[in-house]
Amino acid sequence: MSSTFGRLFRMTTWGESHGVGVGVVVDGCPPGIALDLDAIQAELDRRRPGRSKLASARQEADRVTVLSGLHEGRTLGSPIALSVANTDARPGAYEHLRDLYRPSHGDYTYEAKYGLRDWRGGGRASARETVGRVAGGAIARQLLAERCGVEIVAWVERIADIETARHADSARVDRAGVDSTPVRCPDPAAATRMIERIETARAEGDSLGGIVAARADGLPAGWGDPVFDKLDALLAHAMLSIPACKGFDLGSGFDGTRMTGASHNDPFYFDGTNVRTRTNCSGGVQAGISNGEPLLFRAAFKPTPTIRKGQDTVDRQGNSVKLSARGRHDPCVLPRAVPIVEAMTALVLADSYLRQLAVR
Amino acid sequence: MSSTFGRLFRMTTWGESHGVGVGVVVDGCPPGIALDLDAIQAELDRRRPGRSKLASARQEADRVTVLSGLHEGRTLGSPIALSVANTDARPGAYEHLRDLYRPSHGDYTYEAKYGLRDWRGGGRASARETVGRVAGGAIARQLLAERCGVEIVAWVERIADIETARHADSARVDRAGVDSTPVRCPDPAAATRMIERIETARAEGDSLGGIVAARADGLPAGWGDPVFDKLDALLAHAMLSIPACKGFDLGSGFDGTRMTGASHNDPFYFDGTNVRTRTNCSGGVQAGISNGEPLLFRAAFKPTPTIRKGQDTVDRQGNSVKLSARGRHDPCVLPRAVPIVEAMTALVLADSYLRQLAVR
Amino acid sequence: MSSTFGRLFRMTTWGESHGVGVGVVVDGCPPGIALDLDAIQAELDRRRPGRSKLASARQEADRVTVLSGLHEGRTLGSPIALSVANTDARPGAYEHLRDLYRPSHGDYTYEAKYGLRDWRGGGRASARETVGRVAGGAIARQLLAERCGVEIVAWVERIADIETARHADSARVDRAGVDSTPVRCPDPAAATRMIERIETARAEGDSLGGIVAARADGLPAGWGDPVFDKLDALLAHAMLSIPACKGFDLGSGFDGTRMTGASHNDPFYFDGTNVRTRTNCSGGVQAGISNGEPLLFRAAFKPTPTIRKGQDTVDRQGNSVKLSARGRHDPCVLPRAVPIVEAMTALVLADSYLRQLAVR
Amino acid sequence: MSSTFGRLFRMTTWGESHGVGVGVVVDGCPPGIALDLDAIQAELDRRRPGRSKLASARQEADRVTVLSGLHEGRTLGSPIALSVANTDARPGAYEHLRDLYRPSHGDYTYEAKYGLRDWRGGGRASARETVGRVAGGAIARQLLAERCGVEIVAWVERIADIETARHADSARVDRAGVDSTPVRCPDPAAATRMIERIETARAEGDSLGGIVAARADGLPAGWGDPVFDKLDALLAHAMLSIPACKGFDLGSGFDGTRMTGASHNDPFYFDGTNVRTRTNCSGGVQAGISNGEPLLFRAAFKPTPTIRKGQDTVDRQGNSVKLSARGRHDPCVLPRAVPIVEAMTALVLADSYLRQLAVR
Repeated sequence: MSSTFGRLFRMTTWGESHGVGVGVVVDGCPPGIALDLDAIQAELDRRRPGRSKLASARQEADRVTVLSGLHEGRTLGSPIALSVANTDARPGAYEHLRDLYRPSHGDYTYEAKYGLRDWRGGGRASARETVGRVAGGAIARQLLAERCGVEIVAWVERIADIETARHADSARVDRAGVDSTPVRCPDPAAATRMIERIETARAEGDSLGGIVAARADGLPAGWGDPVFDKLDALLAHAMLSIPACKGFDLGSGFDGTRMTGASHNDPFYFDGTNVRTRTNCSGGVQAGISNGEPLLFRAAFKPTPTIRKGQDTVDRQGNSVKLSARGRHDPCVLPRAVPIVEAMTALVLADSYLRQLAVR
Repeated sequence: MSSTFGRLFRMTTWGESHGVGVGVVVDGCPPGIALDLDAIQAELDRRRPGRSKLASARQEADRVTVLSGLHEGRTLGSPIALSVANTDARPGAYEHLRDLYRPSHGDYTYEAKYGLRDWRGGGRASARETVGRVAGGAIARQLLAERCGVEIVAWVERIADIETARHADSARVDRAGVDSTPVRCPDPAAATRMIERIETARAEGDSLGGIVAARADGLPAGWGDPVFDKLDALLAHAMLSIPACKGFDLGSGFDGTRMTGASHNDPFYFDGTNVRTRTNCSGGVQAGISNGEPLLFRAAFKPTPTIRKGQDTVDRQGNSVKLSARGRHDPCVLPRAVPIVEAMTALVLADSYLRQLAVR
Repeated sequence: MSSTFGRLFRMTTWGESHGVGVGVVVDGCPPGIALDLDAIQAELDRRRPGRSKLASARQEADRVTVLSGLHEGRTLGSPIALSVANTDARPGAYEHLRDLYRPSHGDYTYEAKYGLRDWRGGGRASARETVGRVAGGAIARQLLAERCGVEIVAWVERIADIETARHADSARVDRAGVDSTPVRCPDPAAATRMIERIETARAEGDSLGGIVAARADGLPAGWGDPVFDKLDALLAHAMLSIPACKGFDLGSGFDGTRMTGASHNDPFYFDGTNVRTRTNCSGGVQAGISNGEPLLFRAAFKPTPTIRKGQDTVDRQGNSVKLSARGRHDPCVLPRAVPIVEAMTALVLADSYLRQLAVR
Repeated sequence: MSSTFGRLFRMTTWGESHGVGVGVVVDGCPPGIALDLDAIQAELDRRRPGRSKLASARQEADRVTVLSGLHEGRTLGSPIALSVANTDARPGAYEHLRDLYRPSHGDYTYEAKYGLRDWRGGGRASARETVGRVAGGAIARQLLAERCGVEIVAWVERIADIETARHADSARVDRAGVDSTPVRCPDPAAATRMIERIETARAEGDSLGGIVAARADGLPAGWGDPVFDKLDALLAHAMLSIPACKGFDLGSGFDGTRMTGASHNDPFYFDGTNVRTRTNCSGGVQAGISNGEPLLFRAAFKPTPTIRKGQDTVDRQGNSVKLSARGRHDPCVLPRAVPIVEAMTALVLADSYLRQLAVR
């Protein structure tokens, strides 16, 4: 049951890394939306590997097929099933991992949980599962844009210790800027240094982590639900569900814990039309509900666990083994995490939008 | 629907700050557990205000009443309803807030969402709602202890910039140490400085934030579900649902994003009985599933938004207003957040335990 | 988790027959509804025992207390908790049943499921649990009346083989007519015979079953969801969840299976404003979605299993035992089932209403 | 969200009648089950049209493709995605229905709900959607057989007024007997008359309804959940979700409402190993929980709404129209409903099995 996300706008993903394919069923999308299939494909293209030397060399066309839910170009209100074939699956390349547990991967924990696992490229634990999320998120995004004027953008804020100035620039980041560099950092100078650092890591057989930041504009006040389904709680859930994500914060987040209430509180004012806040330490959410300011949050990604450098591990029999990864992998997942973060954000917001329709 | 948490071990809380009372219904607790009601009361006592000068002066006995679900001292498998009366409600004390939006509180967002709100002490947005969580969590905790030997401990790791050494000591923190100081920091030297800082903040009419850390021991490998219900995703959801929580990370978390894969990966070894890891950057979770190592995570809490210092805000008509809080409030919520973090952790783990029973 | 009903308008009941009390938490009720508490009490009064010689002699005031969710008489959008004390609990009266399995009761199955049970008056399996449903349903009913003009009425259509003419009169039945006889049959002649038959059954230490019919007027076309949450599927689920209910049908139902398509299909016509049907074999639902015609369905209730006549059964050790019930019980549950059927119908419809708000 | 069924063993179906195909994603199936794909195909073959003159002439191979969830022939615990292509879709054949509402179909209600509809062969409301259910149910069935020894059989008990003796024979019906006649009635004499009657109805351009009965053997006592998720409530929900189903009853059902408690109660006895009942008016369920006796229930199916005989209806503009169906359709759905009833039963039981694992 854990492959379904959302309450009213619901997405169920399926598929293993080296099986027939991967896909998603989106249920609860309102009827009458004129879906732009090219826009869905464009998001998949942003996610797919093999597009720059910063990413895995796996070659996947990742062409999306719509199996249901559309009629004459519009959503019917029925489930939208999308599938993407695995065309560059090379299960043989993983044969040597059949009995090994790769450190900080899901090999051991999946086997502990299920008693067996698909050892080919991570199976269900592979980030290839996120193809379905990105496709589903692209639908959510179109719904939000068409119905509510909500726009979402994410970007690489930091790789290892190379950082773009966060608070200064977050309001100005746009998608064109993000996609202008292969590392998806909108600060060109920082981007250049990030790329060099990633290339160095790759050359050393090592990997890097960092932070993805995200912003959503256009949310009205009132989205998100009190107590257990706070908007920030759902976003945290969504982000931590992304492979390699290890942390989340909203607005001032961890840094804000060093401030005092007097400086951290966001003073209200009235701009003649709306109640607004002068600062946005809250990141657009107060008591779990959007306040009409931009939504601002961050997700922390650990360094990719797959590295070429030798590592100590054990096999299923408990024997010590020296492992050097041979599969195709990313020395740093962050550039490809950007469209995934955007997709999961879109899913949370589309669900919150529908839920609020049922409130008033 | 947002007042229910959990899939199999489910908790529904109810109640507003200055209404008749607050409570919880726990559904899905397995039958036959000999519930220790004193232990439930003890957790409520740890959470309640008025116990030290670090906390709100609100005087609440917070005596729990069991309304259902027990027979001859054992759980029946039917819903366990618990209620706690609000005995020190003083709604009149909030009369001046009827038309004001307190900065960084839920006043404005609740009104935007619902069109009306209970302005008495935050109503449903008040942290008083967490009484139900702590009571429900205390049941989860007993289930985990009795059935699985799982123990949970949380503590204050940092207040503002006063920090206890995290990585060095986290494995040794125990409940006795945590409760040995009113600030619930197990490092006595740091605790002394934290208390001084909180008293200074109170004297200045200001407030402080910080970090609560938590650990759970005794989890077997295999808890947590892939993809969207990863154990860390559920924990992040749970933590961000706590009032004033603005961030979450697991294991190395945000700090770990500065490491490289070679140093961050946790090497496996076999201890003769179990597969173990030599380090625990993963915080006990790999690919969303527990690996048998201690669960380690952190939750960031913002400075309390209620302060005596004057603040700029607006009223419902959009007029600018200067506000100075008069209600009873905590200059720093972290000491009282400790049992709430533990309760939410217990709820996530109890649910994960039951879910795993249905897997194999 | 099985004590919660509904997706958006959600009700969680708690309580055992001879515990402290019974109650309900309703989550998801929209804000701003001016709740009429007397109307809630009136529904509970219709359900409670001791009001006529047709029902159990258990004396319960069944006064409802509102614990949360209201402010200045209006719903807040937060959970509405209602409780009712058990004032006439006489657990001692059930002591002789501690080790017996009453035939066609839940004694044996609860014990098989949970390994233990509350043997006092059926515990959680007692129809006393429906107090919470009736209270929750009364809220749903007010929402439907205020927002949508939907009215629900149920009545006793048949007791044993004494029947009121169904198809002829169903459109004219109203609540005043239903409540005009203690047996809640709107046909006075049939009612008189039903009452006589029930009194005879009571005198013989036996019990009777029958059929409750229900109608809802004012539903717009478009409520209910395709595939698995069809309006009739949710109603069937709701009805079969009522103690002693063993069957459900909609519109022409079981009888209609003897017709042919040409006579069974409901021809459409246009009345100048709406598309209507000339007949209503569909019972107001086509393909799981309301079509704007009156909703019509029936629920079959078995004869009460508690009887004074001697019965063969076994005890927990497998010994054969002769059992004669001594507790207070109804010789026929149907009159008291009427408000429960209405309550469950209201809950399904309130949920369907909210779900449709999120569709378009 | 309404295309998902089940809590722990969850099935999500997708697809429209004349789209690319139909399919299902099953999430929550335990790991390690050696799936027999031929058995899944065999169930689809039992459901598919074009196999006898009693059914629609639509020619569909209905070959199932497994897209995910299996590794080396065994379930992984991850979602199992199955798809079936629509190979004999002829949308042009429905062009004349673009603006018409077929009586007692979903045309009007879908449009009222969604504002638009796929008019090609019923779209999402088509019984073709049940392909996914039968595939998903076939997996549930294998799980139940392998883990619990549960076997399910359904059969045609009555067509119009031609009936096979119910109570006498239900315990002896087996699958071979059911499939020995094209009408799936295990009583050869009744089957012959049913077939004649269906052929007459077809010749007259009319259609017939009837009753499908079902039995499950091998359930232990203890499955099903109290209050809202009673086993019979879930079965009722499941049956009424099947297209054309209008009624459900369990055990003695509607007939039993004419009995008295003394004759209706099922006396317990001890057979040396288990507590058993001498009669089975309860249909294997008491207080919503299985009691270890055979599960026995019935589902009522209305006459197929698609008929060749002329009918009165209206178009989208409200004009009166005379309609004669031209599409391929079944004069009686009951024979093909048999595998669907079995599939839905298997899904309910598989879910109940997993839920009970999490209880004790």
